[in-house]
Amino acid sequence: MQRFASAIRLRPDKEADYRALHADVWPAVLATIHNVNIRNYSIFLLDGVLFSYFEYIGADFDSDMARMAEDPATQRWWYLTDPCQQPMEGAAEGQWWTPMTEVFHSD
Amino acid sequence: MQRFASAIRLRPDKEADYRALHADVWPAVLATIHNVNIRNYSIFLLDGVLFSYFEYIGADFDSDMARMAEDPATQRWWYLTDPCQQPMEGAAEGQWWTPMTEVFHSD
Repeated sequence: MQRFASAIRLRPDKEADYRALHADVWPAVLATIHNVNIRNYSIFLLDGVLFSYFEYIGADFDSDMARMAEDPATQRWWYLTDPCQQPMEGAAEGQWWTPMTEVFHSD
Repeated sequence: MQRFASAIRLRPDKEADYRALHADVWPAVLATIHNVNIRNYSIFLLDGVLFSYFEYIGADFDSDMARMAEDPATQRWWYLTDPCQQPMEGAAEGQWWTPMTEVFHSD
């Protein structure tokens, strides 16, 4: 299992939209998350920054993420959620969520 | 089980010290973390902000955290790690790590 954490900014004028969407995520989106081997997935918010944490139990992360990106329901979902977000200041060109570095772990 | 996420600033001049400490956390500190019913505990770093994620499996969080704070090894550990950190801008008076709000979860 691999842990992935990343961050992205939440646009202040879109916080209500984003929270409403995530209070009732579409079943097809949840099914895809599960199908691409993501588990124990949480998103937290503080001071306009979204923090994502999940665990990946598959064997080919890039392939699974590509499958997720091809899912029509997920594409419709991102069409609604992407305008709520903007990359962190230090994000690389074209990067959406910025990966965080794990500095400690204890089971 | 309850999930807890929180954030705190890492002082730029202390990043190397903090990372070195957390690459080799003392066994007595790890034992206390386990004894106070914390599991799956990770700390991530991005842009000078530390993000903490853990799962609490006990029945009395405040009591368990008080027990942790009374542990001599943990006190010595915090004596080294506290100077590496400073509260987030929006932290309440006297608050150290700032709790984040969970906006999404999928098992």
